[in-house]
Formats: sequence, C-alpha cells, structure tokens
Amino acid sequence: MTRMAPPVITFLSDYGLEDDFVGVCHAVIVGLCPDCHIIDLNHGIPRHNVQAGALVLSGALPYLPVGVHLAVVDPDVGAERRAVALRLANDHILVGPDNGVLSLAAELAGGVIEAVDIAHSEFRLEPVSATFHGRDIFAPVAARLAAGAALGQAGAPCDPDDLVRIELPRPAVDNGTLVAHAIYVDRFGNVQLDASHEDIARAGLKLGTTIQLHRDGREPRPAVFARTFAEVERGALLVYEDADRRMALAVSHANAAELLGLSAGEQLRIVVE
Amino acid sequence: MTRMAPPVITFLSDYGLEDDFVGVCHAVIVGLCPDCHIIDLNHGIPRHNVQAGALVLSGALPYLPVGVHLAVVDPDVGAERRAVALRLANDHILVGPDNGVLSLAAELAGGVIEAVDIAHSEFRLEPVSATFHGRDIFAPVAARLAAGAALGQAGAPCDPDDLVRIELPRPAVDNGTLVAHAIYVDRFGNVQLDASHEDIARAGLKLGTTIQLHRDGREPRPAVFARTFAEVERGALLVYEDADRRMALAVSHANAAELLGLSAGEQLRIVVE
Amino acid sequence: MTRMAPPVITFLSDYGLEDDFVGVCHAVIVGLCPDCHIIDLNHGIPRHNVQAGALVLSGALPYLPVGVHLAVVDPDVGAERRAVALRLANDHILVGPDNGVLSLAAELAGGVIEAVDIAHSEFRLEPVSATFHGRDIFAPVAARLAAGAALGQAGAPCDPDDLVRIELPRPAVDNGTLVAHAIYVDRFGNVQLDASHEDIARAGLKLGTTIQLHRDGREPRPAVFARTFAEVERGALLVYEDADRRMALAVSHANAAELLGLSAGEQLRIVVE
Repeated sequence: MTRMAPPVITFLSDYGLEDDFVGVCHAVIVGLCPDCHIIDLNHGIPRHNVQAGALVLSGALPYLPVGVHLAVVDPDVGAERRAVALRLANDHILVGPDNGVLSLAAELAGGVIEAVDIAHSEFRLEPVSATFHGRDIFAPVAARLAAGAALGQAGAPCDPDDLVRIELPRPAVDNGTLVAHAIYVDRFGNVQLDASHEDIARAGLKLGTTIQLHRDGREPRPAVFARTFAEVERGALLVYEDADRRMALAVSHANAAELLGLSAGEQLRIVVE
Repeated sequence: MTRMAPPVITFLSDYGLEDDFVGVCHAVIVGLCPDCHIIDLNHGIPRHNVQAGALVLSGALPYLPVGVHLAVVDPDVGAERRAVALRLANDHILVGPDNGVLSLAAELAGGVIEAVDIAHSEFRLEPVSATFHGRDIFAPVAARLAAGAALGQAGAPCDPDDLVRIELPRPAVDNGTLVAHAIYVDRFGNVQLDASHEDIARAGLKLGTTIQLHRDGREPRPAVFARTFAEVERGALLVYEDADRRMALAVSHANAAELLGLSAGEQLRIVVE
Repeated sequence: MTRMAPPVITFLSDYGLEDDFVGVCHAVIVGLCPDCHIIDLNHGIPRHNVQAGALVLSGALPYLPVGVHLAVVDPDVGAERRAVALRLANDHILVGPDNGVLSLAAELAGGVIEAVDIAHSEFRLEPVSATFHGRDIFAPVAARLAAGAALGQAGAPCDPDDLVRIELPRPAVDNGTLVAHAIYVDRFGNVQLDASHEDIARAGLKLGTTIQLHRDGREPRPAVFARTFAEVERGALLVYEDADRRMALAVSHANAAELLGLSAGEQLRIVVE
C-alpha cells in the first residue's frame, strides 16, 4: 500500500524569525490541515518590500511541488488592498494580499484561471485582527485549500484582470551597451540584475571577456563575465548567470553590494570592450 | 480510510537559529516520535528573558493545536530550578523549566491539572549534560509524551501549587490617566503594553482620538488611537490593539522602540486629552 | 496497523535563512520524497567555513536518527571539488561536497563503507547551475536516497580513501600545561576547545579548582573549572565540559568570545595552579 503524498503549503513572508509570527501561522495551518507539509520558502524578505517578495516567489516557482503557496508581504494590512486566492494555469494555488506580490509568479505560471476575494472568507479566524491577516485570513484559507476545499468556497469570485501587477524595469541593449537594473541583493551581497542570458548575448558579451561596469557618478569598473566564482581571483568583480538564470554581479569571497555601494533599484550600464 | 492526525509538538526557546541547538532537539524528537509534526513557535526570545518567553507562549496558546508545547528559556540550567511537565485544564501539555516560562500559558488555559518533576525522568538521554537540558531532558520528554506516554510516566508527581509563577506589572487607571508598562518589543519595534482594550475603554479613550504619552524625564508626545497603521501618516505615532488583543505603540513605517528609546519594563502614562 | 517512520533528511549549510536557498532545497526534496521529515540542523555555519560545518555535523551525529544527512558548505562550488554521497559504517548516509565537511562525522561513525561521486548523478536537476549545487545536485540526490534509491544508483563509485579529510589541531599536555585551541564559537560567545575531558584530567585539572588561561601577548586570566554556569558568579570566567563533551570557555551571563577577543583557531595554554 502506498501512502498518498501529504498536501504541500509553501510560505514566504517578511515576518522574520525573531518573533512568533511565522510560528503562529504554522500552528493555525497544522490545526486545520494536520497532515500538510509546510515549507518555509523565505521569511527574510526586507520588510514591506513587495517587489522582492514577488521576485523570490517567481524565482522559486519552478522548483515548488504542486500545492498552495502563501506569500505575505503586506504593507497595507488593514487598509483597502484586497486579499486573494488564485488558481494558476499550472494548477498551483497562490494566497496573499493583492498588491503584486503574487503577480510575477502568476505570470510565469501562465496566468490566473480563477480568482477569489478572501477578505470575508468563511475560513477566516474570528475575530479578525487589524494587523495580522497572515494568522487570521491567509494561513487558514491556505490550510483549508490544501486540505481539499474548492477555491470557490474560500471567497467571492473576482476578475483576474483586475489583480494588481508589478512592473519590473526592463533591460535594454543600446549601441553595444546593456542597460540593466539591480533588482535583488542576497545575504552574500550578490546583486541580481533584470538582464537574462539572452540580453547579455544580444549585447555581444561572451564568457571569459572583460566588460566595463558604468554607474552614474562613479568611475567605470572592469568585471569578468565568468561561469562561477571559482574562475576569478579572490576580490575580483565578476558578472555571471545566477541560479535563477538572471545576470548577477559578485565579488569572489566578498560582498559585492557593500563594496560597490549598490542596492536594488539602481540602473547600471554594461559596456563590452 | 482516514489518516490520524500526527502528534504535534510546538517548540519555543531562546536558542536562536545560528547554532544547532534547535536542530539537535528536533533530531532527538524525531528519533523518539518519528511521525510528529514539530512547529517552531519562536527561537528568537531574547537570551534568558523568561518573561518574554512566557508572554509569547501565552499569546500564541489560543492558536496552538492540542499537543505538547516545549518552552526552553532557562538561565539557571544546571542549577536548582526544577524541570517539569504539566497537563493543563484544556488538555494541552507544557514541558520546560519551572521558572515561570510556562506559568502565563498555564493560567490562560485554566490552570494545571497534573504536574511531574522530570529532572530524573526515565525518558532523559544519558549522560545528561550540565548545560543542554533542551536536548537531554526537555526534548525527549516532550517527544515521548507526544508519542503517547502518560504524564505520570515522565517523572515524579509534584504539587501544581508549588510551580513558579511570573507576576506581570498591572496597568491602572488613575484620574483619567492609564498607567501601563512596555512588556514586549517585536522585531519591527512595535511595543506591546500590558493594557487591554478594556483598560483603554476604562480610561475613556476612543478610536480616532489623540492621547498624550508621558514618560519620566521626557517631553509628552501625542499619539493617535487607531485601528491600523494604514489610518495614520507615515512616521506618526499610534496606539492600537495588537494581534494579541493588547494595546501597543507603533510608528507607521518605522521602528517605534528605537525612535522612542523605549524597552520592555518601562512605565508609561497615557493621558486622554 | 502501524505507520512506518517517515524517512529522515537532516540539512546543514552556510546558506543562512535571509534568502530562499534553504527553502528552495526543501521544495526540491519534498517534490522527490513527499513523505520525508526534513530536520534543519543548522544553516548558520559561518560562510565558507568548512571546518565549522564539519564540527557541527560530527557533534550532532550521535543525536541524529538514521537517515540522509545533507551538509553544504561549499566555497568551491563550480570548481574542481567532487560532490559525493557516502554510506557510513553506522548505516547513515552523508551527502555534500568532498572538501572535508563530511569527514569528521564519517570518522566518528566508524568510517565510509561505500562512496559515490554524484557530480554527474542521474538524480541531478537539469540544467545544473554553476553556483547552486545545493538545489541542483545535493538536495535531489539526498531526496532520492531517502526515498529508497540505492547508493550505487546515485553516482559513480569512488575510493573512500581518496576523500578529503579535515585535520584538526591536537591538544597536548606539556609539563602541567594543557595546550589547546579554540575551534568553534557559538552565538552566546561560548568558545569550544579541542580538548576533551580526558585531556583535562591528564593535565591534572579538577572540578572547582582555578586555572590560569595564557594567551600570546596577553595577561594571564584566572578561570574556574566548573560543571555549570550557575556555579560561578555573574561575569566570572569558567572552563567547563560542554554538551559535545568538549572543554569550553564561557563567561557567566556574558559573551566570552567578545570579552576575551577570542576566535576560532587561536591557541591557548591552560596552566593548573
């Protein structure tokens, strides 16, 4: 006799792990869906940074088992923003605030098939607090969906076309120069850019060559386009394709974001020699 | 055929997540109760802060599934303090040092029905280290209880009336002024007070009104009594009912504890205009 | 009908918890071995510190259920180092880079019975990234082994004698002086030494006596050899046997590493009065 796979809930937030926000959400989930496997995808999203949450969720999506993906980065909790649950074209379900944090993953999965507004879900915990919808709305809805409830039971239907979307900056190639943007900095100080391998190829950049990194108000700096950190000397700046298949900047054995004074949002120009 | 719900163990401590203290306790638990679902309630309790541990555990209790709740904040490990396992009136079981960390949750649950001293429990791992009772006493006892052992098997009976209790400061209303105390600061810098919604009502405070916050040796500061952060401007000080249904101070989009130089233990006077 | 114990995977790394490295590895594991119980042993190993990872893994090993132990501290990811899976004499399985991080645990368990090189494992996720072998090689191999695959299926056989080993410094007793080395500092600032209880006994040190701690270029400091922190005054320096049964330095209610300016690698001389 084979055992059925337990239902999966992944959980991403900006709650951090110093307090019990994450733990209490786990407790609520386990109470409603005792058999589920909860995967803490990441609770270190910078506070209120909806774009970072959206990028991490969409970057992880190709590796997530089919299940319910709970994403709570919610600067406007208690205000007008909607709370939603979404069924995607790839059969995954997303639960979170309708502020864009779910939008990049939804696009990557081929779009939203069915959406419900869960602000007044019958699955909510009563009384609903004004400040902790993770516990009172999102976790119980995710748990009940993982336990087998139909999406339509979780809330009132709403139009997928009305969902809030995040617009990322777009890289561009202009006269041999790749104009890109820093979009995420990890804890090692590696800086992810919005440019893909294809963008780099269009700019004429090849593995092993040296480029110049231009930034407003700073001296250009050379960097090697390498496959891995191990191919350059300690302390050398490199451009590489990261594990999300995006271009990234790093310094071997050091923190590139700190050394370059670079943070998410800044525009960079990569010039092939 | 339905599957029985796996036994639940929740785990709170001041061990932090930088070392393997928590991981080794998990390993011990899984070895003794392979099917259990372990919920990490919070390992970020400030080191040795028994009161903070007690507050977090009691705040979370209403959201915890029936199970064994392990709470290890244990500044006197290796000294005279007892180690105990307690069956509560609501059928939950608590395991931890008898230094008060369990006491607020026990009171909230309606009291202790049965208590055992587990210092010499037959469930201990031998040899017992002098400094890591989480691994050697508390985790194995919790695991065996979760796996179905009777409380009486875990240790020697002791009198629930002899258990150590934490006495929290009490808020008071005096001539239109609410005297309260900061009891917990979360990682966002929100400051929880010991005052409840009822205390606030007794002081005559109504939603949307402005109060003055008085502290020894400082200028009074105005604050709005609001339902959510979203109701005030960025940077404004507010008083609100937090998710534990206690009054709290916050600054919208900022760290109130830092801005006010306020930490747990300080007395505050809230004066209605 | 009894339920079979779920397979166990423990996971140690230097990935930290700020990003989604750990969460994505969990997702990959759960996708391939839905029933497994994943224990996060520790993700706070200092970045690239292979020796610290090896020490933590071997210290924890006696407490780990039989299972697959995944250890990823991998400064040379993408370079020449091998990736391996090892079956130990005690039937545990280790998975990780062949840079020594697995070696102390393997020795403690009685040695390696069977070793395979998994760099080109059929269990890898394709395409394999250059920088995230945790996700693309180690996690899927660990998951498939936990799910029941034979070790020989996971990669190409290799000679256990060729595996990279870590050589720790060795303590020595010289004329009543114990020469030892700091090998690990935990988040409380307690400093683990490479000396065992037996080394201390050989040096003639007895519980309750005072020793002098000598370090190059510093004044000697007295310390008490105590069983627990509770036996000395707040602020006093003590030497004690820690939970790994190694000698350690601590300051009661304070951070010894900070107060002494001491970090892993330094040599100390402990002189019995």
